[in-house]
Amino acid sequence: MTTRLTLSIDAMGGDNAPDMVIDGVEAAAKQNPELRFLLFGDETRLNEMLQSHPAALASSVVRHAPDVIGSGDKPAVALRGGRQSSMRLAINAVGDGEADAVISAGNTGALMAIAKFVLKTLPGIDRPAIATFFPTMRSQSVMLDLGANIECDANNLMQFAVMGEVFARNVLNCEHPSVGILNVGAENLKGNKEVRDAAEMLQQTHLPIHFHGFVEGDDIAKGTVDVIVTDGFTGNIALKTAEGMASMFGFFLRSALTSSIFGKIGALIARPALLKFKAKFDPRLYNGAMFVGLNGICVKSHGGTDGFGFANAIGVAVNLVRNNFNEGIKEDCAQLLEDRDAAILAAGEGDTDNSEAAAG
Amino acid sequence: MTTRLTLSIDAMGGDNAPDMVIDGVEAAAKQNPELRFLLFGDETRLNEMLQSHPAALASSVVRHAPDVIGSGDKPAVALRGGRQSSMRLAINAVGDGEADAVISAGNTGALMAIAKFVLKTLPGIDRPAIATFFPTMRSQSVMLDLGANIECDANNLMQFAVMGEVFARNVLNCEHPSVGILNVGAENLKGNKEVRDAAEMLQQTHLPIHFHGFVEGDDIAKGTVDVIVTDGFTGNIALKTAEGMASMFGFFLRSALTSSIFGKIGALIARPALLKFKAKFDPRLYNGAMFVGLNGICVKSHGGTDGFGFANAIGVAVNLVRNNFNEGIKEDCAQLLEDRDAAILAAGEGDTDNSEAAAG
Repeated sequence: MTTRLTLSIDAMGGDNAPDMVIDGVEAAAKQNPELRFLLFGDETRLNEMLQSHPAALASSVVRHAPDVIGSGDKPAVALRGGRQSSMRLAINAVGDGEADAVISAGNTGALMAIAKFVLKTLPGIDRPAIATFFPTMRSQSVMLDLGANIECDANNLMQFAVMGEVFARNVLNCEHPSVGILNVGAENLKGNKEVRDAAEMLQQTHLPIHFHGFVEGDDIAKGTVDVIVTDGFTGNIALKTAEGMASMFGFFLRSALTSSIFGKIGALIARPALLKFKAKFDPRLYNGAMFVGLNGICVKSHGGTDGFGFANAIGVAVNLVRNNFNEGIKEDCAQLLEDRDAAILAAGEGDTDNSEAAAG
Repeated sequence: MTTRLTLSIDAMGGDNAPDMVIDGVEAAAKQNPELRFLLFGDETRLNEMLQSHPAALASSVVRHAPDVIGSGDKPAVALRGGRQSSMRLAINAVGDGEADAVISAGNTGALMAIAKFVLKTLPGIDRPAIATFFPTMRSQSVMLDLGANIECDANNLMQFAVMGEVFARNVLNCEHPSVGILNVGAENLKGNKEVRDAAEMLQQTHLPIHFHGFVEGDDIAKGTVDVIVTDGFTGNIALKTAEGMASMFGFFLRSALTSSIFGKIGALIARPALLKFKAKFDPRLYNGAMFVGLNGICVKSHGGTDGFGFANAIGVAVNLVRNNFNEGIKEDCAQLLEDRDAAILAAGEGDTDNSEAAAG
């Protein structure tokens, strides 16, 4: 028996909202008839659209939200001014315990700022991160942070590692996920102070984390580790570089196969194989970035996706709720806080021992 | 009439040295009979090998170097202890004016440390950078830094922009190259202080640089700009992420086409088109990372390449020498230094005007 989940939907966020959102809800409702949706947005428009989406209609309740946060709105402005927006009200539903998770395809910065304000961070987590999973040559990996935190210290990176590990274990079903920190080389001395300190913390933690060590950019696609930890600046650039490469590859493959008659004939015969290959890199399959470290499940869909992609983002949220993702983080963070207290205590004792040396 | 160039070769650097190095010299010598090579390494071995490489034999002089710098040696150790190494003696030849450029497939960190020590940086350049060019959907771009400088300030990034622009103009033959700074978003407020300050400097410079603004990771493959400027940490990770994606794409394409009989038949018919496609991503074609900002041309070949790849790295060095790359940088840096003096002067005047306010 599965519990009935309630998902709060920002129906107005995204390039083609609310159309693609309602298409996504329709697809998700067909696939999981036990889901229940709270749709926040323009009441009249949404009710009208639901008439042609029977599965969504049967499982949704529409809640009117007079405002919409624009894709160009600054997070601080959206936080202050957007109290009646579809995004804010959708997040509030999770904060109030009315819904189990929120999904939005709207402005990422605003979504993070409002989610952080309304839901707060989990105990032991200083800053939430954005995580996503993607295909590798081995299977799938999760990477975080992807842009929520431009600058990160070693503690932040350590917390990302803990959250990523829980994710890989509970959602990707890896039994003993391996964790790597993204760096410019595998040797201990490589990189900046932040990554070196975080590596030391991961080596010393009492948590049963399998820390692989540093990994390099090419290890992402290789699938060398299950969890890739990095700051939001580097993570965002690595992810988008990878997306760009996938587009370029597709572009040159198409042009190679269409530039000669033999290429065209060969492609026609190999069509099922090529379509299977293409599907593997369909970005809609990997749609749904998770805001991790919040006291509530929040999933960000790509703004430019379609109904199929939005349904996938809903699926990600369902997975996180079903697998008790946040409970797992809470448990591990309790140990992390104990570790930290012990370190502070140990440092305090060290200080006393060396007080004269330090003063001299 | 082309001047006869002399290239200094570290014959012992790289995984398969000296074999692949001599293969590379042979290929380059055949293609450019006017090149002259100074080969540094184990005299007996090199002379023996040259017997089976007639073009290399005809254009090379062997210089004995008793030592070799290992791939795991630390830069500082290599600098102090490697005075009789093939790498050091090869760089010395450029420092002494005996050779026009040096090419090595050895330890990157050691090569940069020794090259910096022997050749010194160009006036106006605080830190040399590693640059490479790569294919885009539009044509080719150059990106720097790729790992020489883990942390960079706005001045460093500005200098990278100047060097990259000269490179795109003189070597890639772009008439008005566009320059972008790699960031997590295109808006002015995005990113860290370093990239924002560098962007402001590029907007205000008197140099005729076409500054596009910020670019994101996916703009690398799109070819949105001709020159991509970034710090060595981010650049290294972006480049290796891209390399990893290319491998993954090839891997999945092969497995898709070999997993069914129709895939196999189609691939056979489309073979010439697929081979053309594969060649486009041959990393050997893009072999040869340039150490820019040094008072001498230094090119780093990939350690694991073969003779074809090493010959390409030689070609990169020849291109840099022929196109007066360093003269171009010197001219632009003179303007950069003038800009900086003017800014210091202006700031000084500003200080005087506001001295009371500042004191209060």
